Amino acid sequence: MRPLKSLISIEEAQSIINANISPIATTEEVLLKNLIGRIAAEDIVSDVNIPPFRRAAMDGYAVKAESTFSATESTPIFLTCIEEVHAGEVPQKIIREEECTEIATGAMIPESADTVVQVEYTNKSENEIEIFKAFAPGTNVSNAGADVKSGETVIYKEQKFTPARIGILTALNRSSAKVYKTPQIAVIPTGREIAALGDDLKEGQVYDINSHTLSALISQNGGNPIVYDIVPDEFNALEKAMLDAIPKADLIVIGGGSSVGERDINVDVINKHGSVLFHGIQIKPGKPTLFGVVDKKPVLNLPGYPTSCLVNGYIIMLPILRKMSHLPDVVLRKVNAKLSKKIVSRLGRHQIYTVKLKDGLAIPAFKESGAITSMAWADGYIEIPFNVDLVEKDEEVEVILF
Amino acid sequence: MRPLKSLISIEEAQSIINANISPIATTEEVLLKNLIGRIAAEDIVSDVNIPPFRRAAMDGYAVKAESTFSATESTPIFLTCIEEVHAGEVPQKIIREEECTEIATGAMIPESADTVVQVEYTNKSENEIEIFKAFAPGTNVSNAGADVKSGETVIYKEQKFTPARIGILTALNRSSAKVYKTPQIAVIPTGREIAALGDDLKEGQVYDINSHTLSALISQNGGNPIVYDIVPDEFNALEKAMLDAIPKADLIVIGGGSSVGERDINVDVINKHGSVLFHGIQIKPGKPTLFGVVDKKPVLNLPGYPTSCLVNGYIIMLPILRKMSHLPDVVLRKVNAKLSKKIVSRLGRHQIYTVKLKDGLAIPAFKESGAITSMAWADGYIEIPFNVDLVEKDEEVEVILF
Repeated sequence: MRPLKSLISIEEAQSIINANISPIATTEEVLLKNLIGRIAAEDIVSDVNIPPFRRAAMDGYAVKAESTFSATESTPIFLTCIEEVHAGEVPQKIIREEECTEIATGAMIPESADTVVQVEYTNKSENEIEIFKAFAPGTNVSNAGADVKSGETVIYKEQKFTPARIGILTALNRSSAKVYKTPQIAVIPTGREIAALGDDLKEGQVYDINSHTLSALISQNGGNPIVYDIVPDEFNALEKAMLDAIPKADLIVIGGGSSVGERDINVDVINKHGSVLFHGIQIKPGKPTLFGVVDKKPVLNLPGYPTSCLVNGYIIMLPILRKMSHLPDVVLRKVNAKLSKKIVSRLGRHQIYTVKLKDGLAIPAFKESGAITSMAWADGYIEIPFNVDLVEKDEEVEVILF
Repeated sequence: MRPLKSLISIEEAQSIINANISPIATTEEVLLKNLIGRIAAEDIVSDVNIPPFRRAAMDGYAVKAESTFSATESTPIFLTCIEEVHAGEVPQKIIREEECTEIATGAMIPESADTVVQVEYTNKSENEIEIFKAFAPGTNVSNAGADVKSGETVIYKEQKFTPARIGILTALNRSSAKVYKTPQIAVIPTGREIAALGDDLKEGQVYDINSHTLSALISQNGGNPIVYDIVPDEFNALEKAMLDAIPKADLIVIGGGSSVGERDINVDVINKHGSVLFHGIQIKPGKPTLFGVVDKKPVLNLPGYPTSCLVNGYIIMLPILRKMSHLPDVVLRKVNAKLSKKIVSRLGRHQIYTVKLKDGLAIPAFKESGAITSMAWADGYIEIPFNVDLVEKDEEVEVILF
């Protein structure tokens, strides 16, 4: 066994990682229906006015404003309605001073009108429309280009497609947009002690959990997992999988085999083709986490124990994925709660401690790093900094929700 | 034009809606890789122990605890290492008092051992292992079932599948789970004034935005949109589309045609086959929103103007979708900001006012209900309650982020 040398702080680990990863630069054209959450890779400029014509912003009557100037509550004026224009229709008649056109919200305004009198200020009897209020020219009129002018930038590079931004593309009659490619994340599970889902368990084996938890976390955060078959802890087998993944993936995540008790193959494989940049973080669980670069591709090796692996998936892998995806850091959802019982930590370790929430209490859910229930039965986790060795019962803690 | 009768408050509208919708009761078996975010429709009980065998929780040496009882820093004891067990291997040898087995985290512990001495408290020279500390029996040993005991419930009905809960299924060798079906939401765009994406615009037309913004919002929140072709404002055409959607969808959303200036066909179609429960909410934009029930299926009619439609998609449709999906209400992400300029509202209306965030300022982004840029250029919105008619410049406001 080669013991881990000096452990580094999480901040140091993150800064080494940040210096060695970059947002995906390659782009692809993606159809509208798949655009939600993707990031624009270029500015999008409108080549049309939206709306393309002058339209009514309210239901009512299109008039020449001057026809209404003398109207008051006590001395209404009367106009003759000469036409009815529904949305989508084109007005056929020119209105004169004593005339008006009944018009629906969104409908094209007759050329000769400059104002729409809202239905609330009118009374209709047959074709005679009574109007109770004077209107300034332009009232309730949306001009052509009021929403978007031709030549205007509607989407900026690096903006995320929300429902509304997808809406603006359709207003421009665009059926797709150029976005950054989704990060491809290779997930390589390792270890003779794990069996693939569906296979028979041999004595001494447990089922592979990590490739499924990591894949789910990757998909949930906009990445595309490429999952490899389980690789035994052998130099050649791991080397083969890693070299296969390097050209295909933007990040290679190896699950397991980073601990000192294991055969240290990962360090040797990475160092043969590139270099290990750190091995060992002051974090619990997850101390043996290892990071290197091979052929300019980042390689992250997470511990094999399911809770150690997934905790470091959240803390270490997720920020990499989001930076590659051009996304801001995850906005952590936090709640405050009282700790239901004392937790003892160890100085010099930043401890991630999973908890369940119930009735305003944070109840420890952490069993051991090997137990997936430490995560699955938890609602979130608290962080115990490296310089704290005890959190008392009833102390208020900040719970970061999964 | 038939004017809207009495408007109801948002709270009243939501309580009418809530009384007429229910969580989806039908279930389906879904494969592991598609489970993320889905809701368990039954308890899942383990039929195995996890781990299935006793294993080492640390790297070190498996021993009989009593062999170490006399060990101290100054009077270490010496054991002979008789075997090396990697994770996944089965120990072949029985150890006796003066013996030990080198063992990796996760590996099966020899039957005759009861304790694992961590590598940190040892020194190795050839096959002689020096141990500096006494250990109590059971130290660093994970028993069979320490993670999950056979018969234990690992997932409860109504729990959402997170990466960790997917992990627990794989530990049990389950490749799928029974979950509630995804809500099917019919989206029926209406109006002669809208043209389908890709078609040529006729004079007086604009492109259909709502079916795309609503679909994106539905997909983003775990529903499945079923989008209909654009229906002209004609009784028979809308009736046909609605009756087609009723058996296929859990919720029918009609976009457009709910305003008073329009031909009131929607009210008539719904009332012929079911009943309109409200028409008109004290909200701006979105006043003409209409809700009814036909054949026990909820029918929501949102206004056709893109911003009115999408705002009400967020405020009214989204809570329906989430309740149907067995999800808790959306956790709104909020930030505080100072308003960059005065906003005048109108008493008696709950106003949703979109804003852009820049340098700690909330800058009004609302142009008009017809403008999709009112939404697309905004980062979120503020709410101005019905009893407030003015929000001053520099006033602190709570911005709800999209």
